[in-house]
Amino acid sequence: MAKKRMTGAAVLTFEHISAVVRAVGLDGFMDDIISGLRCAGTNLDTQATVVLERSGFQYSKPDVGLIEWMPSMELGRAVGIKTVGYHPSNPTQRRLPSVLSTTSIHDTATGQLTALVDSTLLTALRTGAASAVVTHILALPTAAVVGIVGAGAQAVTQIHAISRVRQIKRIIAFDTDPAVSATLAARLPLAVPVTVVETAAEAIAQADIVCSATTVDIGAGPVLPDHGYLPHVHINAVGSDFPGKMEVPVALLRAALVVPDDPPQCLREGESQQLELSELGPSLPDLISNAAQYERYQQEITVFDSTGWSLEDLIVAEIALDHARRLGIGMYTDLQSTPADPYSPYEDVLR
Amino acid sequence: MAKKRMTGAAVLTFEHISAVVRAVGLDGFMDDIISGLRCAGTNLDTQATVVLERSGFQYSKPDVGLIEWMPSMELGRAVGIKTVGYHPSNPTQRRLPSVLSTTSIHDTATGQLTALVDSTLLTALRTGAASAVVTHILALPTAAVVGIVGAGAQAVTQIHAISRVRQIKRIIAFDTDPAVSATLAARLPLAVPVTVVETAAEAIAQADIVCSATTVDIGAGPVLPDHGYLPHVHINAVGSDFPGKMEVPVALLRAALVVPDDPPQCLREGESQQLELSELGPSLPDLISNAAQYERYQQEITVFDSTGWSLEDLIVAEIALDHARRLGIGMYTDLQSTPADPYSPYEDVLR
Repeated sequence: MAKKRMTGAAVLTFEHISAVVRAVGLDGFMDDIISGLRCAGTNLDTQATVVLERSGFQYSKPDVGLIEWMPSMELGRAVGIKTVGYHPSNPTQRRLPSVLSTTSIHDTATGQLTALVDSTLLTALRTGAASAVVTHILALPTAAVVGIVGAGAQAVTQIHAISRVRQIKRIIAFDTDPAVSATLAARLPLAVPVTVVETAAEAIAQADIVCSATTVDIGAGPVLPDHGYLPHVHINAVGSDFPGKMEVPVALLRAALVVPDDPPQCLREGESQQLELSELGPSLPDLISNAAQYERYQQEITVFDSTGWSLEDLIVAEIALDHARRLGIGMYTDLQSTPADPYSPYEDVLR
Repeated sequence: MAKKRMTGAAVLTFEHISAVVRAVGLDGFMDDIISGLRCAGTNLDTQATVVLERSGFQYSKPDVGLIEWMPSMELGRAVGIKTVGYHPSNPTQRRLPSVLSTTSIHDTATGQLTALVDSTLLTALRTGAASAVVTHILALPTAAVVGIVGAGAQAVTQIHAISRVRQIKRIIAFDTDPAVSATLAARLPLAVPVTVVETAAEAIAQADIVCSATTVDIGAGPVLPDHGYLPHVHINAVGSDFPGKMEVPVALLRAALVVPDDPPQCLREGESQQLELSELGPSLPDLISNAAQYERYQQEITVFDSTGWSLEDLIVAEIALDHARRLGIGMYTDLQSTPADPYSPYEDVLR
């Protein structure tokens, strides 16, 4: 058998990503991302790592949706740009995920595209991993009951990621669509009892950890109740990612330590858009760098305002690429021109 | 032979682009782009077509360079995002083009990536085509002598494109590197006498049309002389694309009708950064829409401030994709997930 070509730009499709995750194992792959985020947060050099706020197009034709780009750079090494589409009618109208994305990686020495990575699953995984990193620091070590508000795709990766840092004994799940919450247990990669409830209030009442991951409409939130929580609850608020889209009531945020993953972005489109800058707690990298100092908040109400930090996308794409190259998975191609004469653009066409 | 797969996301590498251009013919492909730009300019609906200014990372480590993204949207249809690297030391240090780029195209109905297109050659072609569209309107119909300042890769596509709208009889070329100007004639896809000269002043003195396409350093410009032009000269200024990078002296700009391709972007990083908004002439789409009205400027000095308009990249990528699909060229793959259950991110991994 000819040796598989492994040079040039890497293209990792969804099938390749699935093959990598299968080969590494779902738990091992999630642990790699959790480690990668911890490492990036601990060693963050804000001179060398530049994370830009996302920007994009928002529209309501043909349906409500947006296409955004999330750029980050590790100076002297690589630029990662994730382009992400959010089309909330995808699951019901097209059997497609509401969030679809790809990440391109560019070499800062040459400008060459070095990789294109399907990032739909990777985005869900890294969003879970970020919640796990924060949950590990801010939830009680004995936290065992997870309350779910919004039981779609992200609930699966949130629960899986949290299961890597806390021993989950029970899940209490609510979704506005009972057909969705009914299938949650079957979609999980771990065996844990799931109780389906009919209100968000029931889902959070006994929860040590709450994950909210809804597609609530702009202006229709919040989706979580004002009160009725355990005094030590840690909340991962994952769904807010758009101006006007909110899941957590402002009174609850004001009573909590709020950890924004990316403060300017969270103030614009996260739960933190309900707060002033002075009301925010540490950013995600600050929390990671000073984890011991923040563990005292395990006894108190804490909220992770997770809007998606661009650097997470570069990290998870590079983890997938490293495994893919090691395992011989992926398409490798000369995507861009390496002409015989860089001054002669037609030479390769005409020869 | 199995029928080649033509569904899913299209990946067009440099080899595919070369094959398309060979099949269509260099002249025919250039004519398609010229027509495409004219059509887009004439029919531009500024409600439905949204062209954003580019944004990006600029750095000086490991070498001076930048990686930028240029997004545009045709509402209800597609978003195009070109990512472009500009690394001026590429040709001399790495035998790579200084400008390398790819364009991704996204469906605004679903957010799916529908195509990834190597755009290095396409960018040079569309930059040439834009100059041809403007030259056709603003240069004398009898214009026959082209002065070249900067005889690298872009000079080739500028001359080729202009040859599709004017009968070029002679080229007078200057480059700071005589080894580059010496090979210009051999790199052209048309037979026309090239006179190599030793100064920019000699290159422009008899020129009906001037093309400047240099990699002049930031702060080191201008590269064109203040005076010594024919009174009807039309100048395509292609090289300026960075704050502080300029090719045309401000006195010459002030004496000319200046056509910025994208006014806000030109004011920031084009020749127009030396001017006030009130000193600018029509934008590229305004010029195209009102071509007859501007033909009276053929007798006067005119400057096209070409910084690269994002919509050009979407147009040229779609022309290439249409030909590729028709010709059966390209890789077609399910790049992104189309899961059996959009709420079950692990299903395809675990099955």
